[in-house]
Amino acid sequence: MEGTYDFGLVGLGVMGRNFILNVADNGFSAYGLDTDPEKVDALRLEGEGKKVDGTTGKAQFIQHLSKPRKIMLLVPAGAPVDAVIADLLPLMDKGDLIIDGGNSFFTDTNRRAEELQAKGVHFIGTGVSGGAKGARFGPSIMPGGDKAAYELVKPIFEAVAAKVNGEPCVDYMGAKSAGNYVKMVHNGIEYGLMQLISEIYDVLKTGLGKNNEELHKIFTDWNNDRLKSFLIEITSEIFVQKDEETGGDLVDIILDKAKQKGTGKWTSQNAMDLGTPIPTIDVAVSMRAISSFKSDRLKAQNLYPKPALPANLPSIQDIEAALFFAFIVTYAQGMTQLVAASKEYHYELDLAVISKIWRGGCIIRAELLEDMRKAFTKKNDLKSLLLDEDFARKLNASVGGARKVATFAISAGIPVAGLSASLSYFDAFTTGRLPLNLIQAQRDHFGSHTYERLDKEGIFHTEW
Amino acid sequence: MEGTYDFGLVGLGVMGRNFILNVADNGFSAYGLDTDPEKVDALRLEGEGKKVDGTTGKAQFIQHLSKPRKIMLLVPAGAPVDAVIADLLPLMDKGDLIIDGGNSFFTDTNRRAEELQAKGVHFIGTGVSGGAKGARFGPSIMPGGDKAAYELVKPIFEAVAAKVNGEPCVDYMGAKSAGNYVKMVHNGIEYGLMQLISEIYDVLKTGLGKNNEELHKIFTDWNNDRLKSFLIEITSEIFVQKDEETGGDLVDIILDKAKQKGTGKWTSQNAMDLGTPIPTIDVAVSMRAISSFKSDRLKAQNLYPKPALPANLPSIQDIEAALFFAFIVTYAQGMTQLVAASKEYHYELDLAVISKIWRGGCIIRAELLEDMRKAFTKKNDLKSLLLDEDFARKLNASVGGARKVATFAISAGIPVAGLSASLSYFDAFTTGRLPLNLIQAQRDHFGSHTYERLDKEGIFHTEW
Repeated sequence: MEGTYDFGLVGLGVMGRNFILNVADNGFSAYGLDTDPEKVDALRLEGEGKKVDGTTGKAQFIQHLSKPRKIMLLVPAGAPVDAVIADLLPLMDKGDLIIDGGNSFFTDTNRRAEELQAKGVHFIGTGVSGGAKGARFGPSIMPGGDKAAYELVKPIFEAVAAKVNGEPCVDYMGAKSAGNYVKMVHNGIEYGLMQLISEIYDVLKTGLGKNNEELHKIFTDWNNDRLKSFLIEITSEIFVQKDEETGGDLVDIILDKAKQKGTGKWTSQNAMDLGTPIPTIDVAVSMRAISSFKSDRLKAQNLYPKPALPANLPSIQDIEAALFFAFIVTYAQGMTQLVAASKEYHYELDLAVISKIWRGGCIIRAELLEDMRKAFTKKNDLKSLLLDEDFARKLNASVGGARKVATFAISAGIPVAGLSASLSYFDAFTTGRLPLNLIQAQRDHFGSHTYERLDKEGIFHTEW
Repeated sequence: MEGTYDFGLVGLGVMGRNFILNVADNGFSAYGLDTDPEKVDALRLEGEGKKVDGTTGKAQFIQHLSKPRKIMLLVPAGAPVDAVIADLLPLMDKGDLIIDGGNSFFTDTNRRAEELQAKGVHFIGTGVSGGAKGARFGPSIMPGGDKAAYELVKPIFEAVAAKVNGEPCVDYMGAKSAGNYVKMVHNGIEYGLMQLISEIYDVLKTGLGKNNEELHKIFTDWNNDRLKSFLIEITSEIFVQKDEETGGDLVDIILDKAKQKGTGKWTSQNAMDLGTPIPTIDVAVSMRAISSFKSDRLKAQNLYPKPALPANLPSIQDIEAALFFAFIVTYAQGMTQLVAASKEYHYELDLAVISKIWRGGCIIRAELLEDMRKAFTKKNDLKSLLLDEDFARKLNASVGGARKVATFAISAGIPVAGLSASLSYFDAFTTGRLPLNLIQAQRDHFGSHTYERLDKEGIFHTEW
């Protein structure tokens, strides 16, 4: 039985194994490769009865695939991707396709695409979001690169992707590294949303004294309304998860040092290169970093008494509005970054399509994405969700709650970096005249950096 | 008269010309090089009666310098620095010294240092701050790199640098690119302070209705007290500068789009690589970017009505306290970044020395630097100013004002990104238990990313 498998997958960790089982469930035969025999065995065991097999030998792996071969990599980003490609390339034929499904940095994808093109092998860099369960039962898939080659794998991706109203959560994103870039910004938005939820949790717990059972109820209610989303859903579940060892609530036992794998940081760093502000995502990255200063924080806690809680508590409705507001502003920042990146890197991204495939399967899936899809469908070149009238209505109706919660938290000494940054972004974006004329005056004063004027065109300098 | 000039300088723009005149004023002879004959003429004219001359010819330039030659470059960062070095190197001898005085990116400095070391030419990358006036009458100078070679130019740098209580604002920073790195973070702090001043200007103007004459008075008063600093001083001057053309106040005519040259962005991007949060500097970079969206802001202004001003205005004392508080937090962020960079890049920075040389000459010079010098002298390995008891007293006494101003501005729709970020940083840093346990729970829930526990060591995973 050589050369008949429809799909090859390298890297049989939990993501890879689940993805391959998902492929098989959808009627395609799939063959796996991993250097670890235990992982190959695990695949065979779980894949029993399905058209699935695996090996530790690359030659055997290659021989089992039908031509043109479609080989997806789900290995850690960076050097491992290059190593696997270098390993397989001598065994592959012109016209075969390699798909990198990891969180590769987008400039790495551009480099690999060029290198492989020179050898006649197709290359697609694709984002895959949804975690282990998503990989198994329907992720959101963001492929980019060689458009003609995407047709080779399109039937498989459309079959395995999550579906919303029958539409698969996968579509071609754009040229070169577009798929990895879109996934990177997806993860940046994910950082922002998670930071915001953690702040709202703090406001509810520290500010309003809600216990985990109440928190579960609040987040469950929210998930049945306009905040409906994967992250709100799992948050509600987290509050009722018991710790097997102590029997207590698990969330209370987890250390408050949040780790990161780099995609949030990359999103922020690249946004700065593009000159596109995404402050909510930036502070989400910063707050994970500051969380790692645990011993300093414990010391500092003793030096700085917290202020008393203000008497005037925000309502649950205010808090829900604050989160809704900040969620929208965070998506808006990320979407605007995509608009800027599309222009800078010639991706030709379609924001309506991106909104469409983010509605299901991925970590940031939410009811709101359907509204975003409408906004970008209505106006294809919309630069910011804040400039859409429907979102303006949503934001005008919820910003009052956001202001109440932010001022409450700031008065109480509860850190709300993400909510504050969302408000600052919103307030700056909606202000025709900002005070940064003063910064230009300062720059011209000390550095002769010149300034522009409101009343006429040109570049001016004053001897201050 | 060949081979007798003490000091050579390439790049006779306003910074270079002023620096060379400063060198000559201090008893050293100096020779300039620029490809533009008009700039050479301008130097000769201004340098009449001083031991100063210049040329457009590199051979003549090299011939006029005494050995070992000491050649400083004040040319734009990037390719021009490499071009000048490539141009001069064949004419130089082993043991000569090249000093790059521009805002070069620190990894470029590391590369150049290696390349020149291989050819036997010494290299120093140095920060120079103080703008045109500083260069002329006393800048702050931050040299790093070849320590033995620094001795060659030390007498000249100590003579030309600004003095505070007789101490020159120059000292050896550390190995390799330490000088450029310190200058980069200096500029990052500068971005933060300027953003904060612009926000406070907005609060005073939009929130409290102060006119320019009143603003001038307020900033003048502040500059006579604990906020005394170069940036507050020039801000007070800016408010009374008249526009020559219209006769109106110049500040009101300047366009509110703030430009940037990259050092603030680099500071933020590198802080993220180091895992050291500097959110006030990050948002300063973001707010300059958002200021450039002028046409979008004008559109958005019509979609989003601003809230009414709250009745309860903050006092001028509250506002001064807010700025004082946020200034300290901004310096603290930058200083902590230097501590982290020193460790990561093996610079062996001495924060007390850096505080010392920032007290005069540079753009961020301020009374506060003397207190920082004391804090870092008292505790050489102080990781954060927030952990110093004297600064804790200052912050505890001023944070109330910061909270009042931030809550006022947020209620009024006045964007205070820097002030909010400073408060968020402060509130997070001084909280022993942050809500980021929830983020770790979420990450483990959707991605099996594991978590740590409060009650015991180890890495854990739950099947949620």
